[in-house]
Amino acid sequence: MGTLLLKGIQLNGRKADILVEGNRIARIAETLDSTADRVIDGSGKAVIPGLINMHTHSAMTLLRSCYEDQPLKDWLERVWAVEARLDEEAIYWGAKLAILEMLKTGTTCFLDMYWQTPALARAAEEMGIRAFISYNFLDNFDHEKAEKQYRECEEIYAMSRDWPERVQFCVAVHADYTTSEATMLRSGMFAHDHGLVFTAHLAETLSETQEDIVRTGMTPAQHFHRLGLLGPQTVLAHGLWLDDHDVEILGQSHTTIVHNINSNLKLASGYRFKYQELREAGANICMGTDGAASSNNLDIRESMKTMALLQKAWREDPSAMPLDELMDIATVNAARALRIDAGRVEEGTLADLVLVDTRSEAFIPSANFIGNLILSANSSCFDTVIVDGRVVMENRRVPGEEEILERAEAIARKINNV
Amino acid sequence: MGTLLLKGIQLNGRKADILVEGNRIARIAETLDSTADRVIDGSGKAVIPGLINMHTHSAMTLLRSCYEDQPLKDWLERVWAVEARLDEEAIYWGAKLAILEMLKTGTTCFLDMYWQTPALARAAEEMGIRAFISYNFLDNFDHEKAEKQYRECEEIYAMSRDWPERVQFCVAVHADYTTSEATMLRSGMFAHDHGLVFTAHLAETLSETQEDIVRTGMTPAQHFHRLGLLGPQTVLAHGLWLDDHDVEILGQSHTTIVHNINSNLKLASGYRFKYQELREAGANICMGTDGAASSNNLDIRESMKTMALLQKAWREDPSAMPLDELMDIATVNAARALRIDAGRVEEGTLADLVLVDTRSEAFIPSANFIGNLILSANSSCFDTVIVDGRVVMENRRVPGEEEILERAEAIARKINNV
Repeated sequence: MGTLLLKGIQLNGRKADILVEGNRIARIAETLDSTADRVIDGSGKAVIPGLINMHTHSAMTLLRSCYEDQPLKDWLERVWAVEARLDEEAIYWGAKLAILEMLKTGTTCFLDMYWQTPALARAAEEMGIRAFISYNFLDNFDHEKAEKQYRECEEIYAMSRDWPERVQFCVAVHADYTTSEATMLRSGMFAHDHGLVFTAHLAETLSETQEDIVRTGMTPAQHFHRLGLLGPQTVLAHGLWLDDHDVEILGQSHTTIVHNINSNLKLASGYRFKYQELREAGANICMGTDGAASSNNLDIRESMKTMALLQKAWREDPSAMPLDELMDIATVNAARALRIDAGRVEEGTLADLVLVDTRSEAFIPSANFIGNLILSANSSCFDTVIVDGRVVMENRRVPGEEEILERAEAIARKINNV
Repeated sequence: MGTLLLKGIQLNGRKADILVEGNRIARIAETLDSTADRVIDGSGKAVIPGLINMHTHSAMTLLRSCYEDQPLKDWLERVWAVEARLDEEAIYWGAKLAILEMLKTGTTCFLDMYWQTPALARAAEEMGIRAFISYNFLDNFDHEKAEKQYRECEEIYAMSRDWPERVQFCVAVHADYTTSEATMLRSGMFAHDHGLVFTAHLAETLSETQEDIVRTGMTPAQHFHRLGLLGPQTVLAHGLWLDDHDVEILGQSHTTIVHNINSNLKLASGYRFKYQELREAGANICMGTDGAASSNNLDIRESMKTMALLQKAWREDPSAMPLDELMDIATVNAARALRIDAGRVEEGTLADLVLVDTRSEAFIPSANFIGNLILSANSSCFDTVIVDGRVVMENRRVPGEEEILERAEAIARKINNV
């Protein structure tokens, strides 16, 4: 079991030594007289828990910036046309590009919703990030398709027992307007029976929400509720168009709602995310980036700033969305939903840690580290990333990054010529 | 006259050689066989015109992140209490910290509105940035104060003839609700007579706008109009609360309006900036960051992204705010307002250039460079900054940056202990 010592690093405003044994934090003290296989000098650095991206479609990095400033309908048609060309290899390299970007921006764990589940898992395994890779149900109300998907889901779940513990299988339903109730129920039961995270899109746009009400007589949230699919291990992305009753049922069931502010703004899906209401009702709020085709990057720290700005702006209250809650949203709340011992820098927790270089103009004055990190810095402040006790980025370098850029670029050139 | 050759650099999607002679771009061609005093290898880099920050209070960097998530009234009182402690030395080092940050984030020119004008000019002169430093009128309707300020303005204007051409004097009025009509008129005339840029705050908050209407019978924009203060060399910051008639008169007079999106969101001043209406009416739209106490950083590129996202979101139209117009807002529109030959990379223009390192995940796929630059990258992509033909940042290093961080930190510790 390898040991790693972070020596003299800033933690919650004080200098500390942090000893990592295996994949967990063993000890934290002002000074530790331990020897370790490896020592990292923490001077000029601060440590935070790794950020967690709770909603993305990783391989959509291949579509980044390829079709900008278009009406939603044209944009979607283009995205679908390009996506139809993505084979397993494309998705593998697209996911690697995504993971490279997440590590560079301080993310140590993500929840993915895309196709080619085994290729996604392989990319995550190889790059050392913690990942929750979902099998994605989308049957377009076609019974045969649903059957095929269900068999495939079972097969991949069986395969997933060979994945490292750091890469976990989970279950996704695209959305209730694309997937039959039978499939929603069956996939939800599958997740429940095997103790897996269950994720889906929810009420991303007003039109989809209104159409749902016409089609089912219920809002999307009420639809999930009626099917018994809400709860602490259900992770619903977006949740922008919710009425008071929706907020109540999502809160009472302690469902996780993932806010994807940059994507929501860029696609003009909405910006009045009811953070405070959902939180007060009991829901668990997390942060996501969505895919890079809509948010353009997978930078959770940047999304945290945008969320702070938008909550203050639309509520017309500069005291809305305090910084400490924002940190929880990107760390401890996500760990709670995923049931992992992460999101905090404490003895006994998983060593998913990010080292921040504070020796730059963005961190001066130095009085408010979290304020500077979220509102002033950019994500090049993330210097070193540790996942599961292993250093996966050091001095902003990730092993193999040149090959990833080359391969992803070549594939993107091919697939974007639609 | 020194010469500088940028060799094989990406310009508007093609490789080019760019020869700088003295402070201007002398030649641009696919290949130049010139010798030069200095050659910069452009491989893996793209060149853009330097970004221009059209509204900031530079030395407010000293107040960055020192008082977050507060109601506006408490925040303002705290800011004013700290500002009362700023002496000339504090403002000099605060401005240096601001300029360091602007250079690091690709800004080559800024329009400043603060006190201690000579100290601000000295900071800009020493750091090599292009700057428009205003004398700031704010008389609180006190005739004696106004007289004193007018004499001071004249003295500093006389001194400014010794400033390098790169640092220009200009005239500011804080706002029409803090400054008497007599002072607004007199300072506006002073700017007009000497061919100086004239700048002020305009309609930043709804309450200030409503109070103006009650007090003067006019909106703030109409107030400036009635005093004859609108026009192409008038630069008005914010302009968030405008009625149709305001838009018309600002447009017809080709007045410059500076959007400060991050500050407007964070202080909950408003977010429905009428970009399209103002532009169509004929106004000249530019970008600013406001001071770092409200926007937390002086990163124009980041502000460009926020502006794109917000315009799309509040208009509920993903095709709103196209990328090419966004580049104009941060470059050529600002150069027009300031009457400098900058904002474009063309033969004969001032050599205010920024080199972007494109060898990172944010620029893959590479098909849409501007999309990647604004929406995907963070501002650590800015590698080298050239102002007035001189390299002022290279490989992300600015001479003297350690001393600036140290001095600014020490001063901030002292003044923030209110």
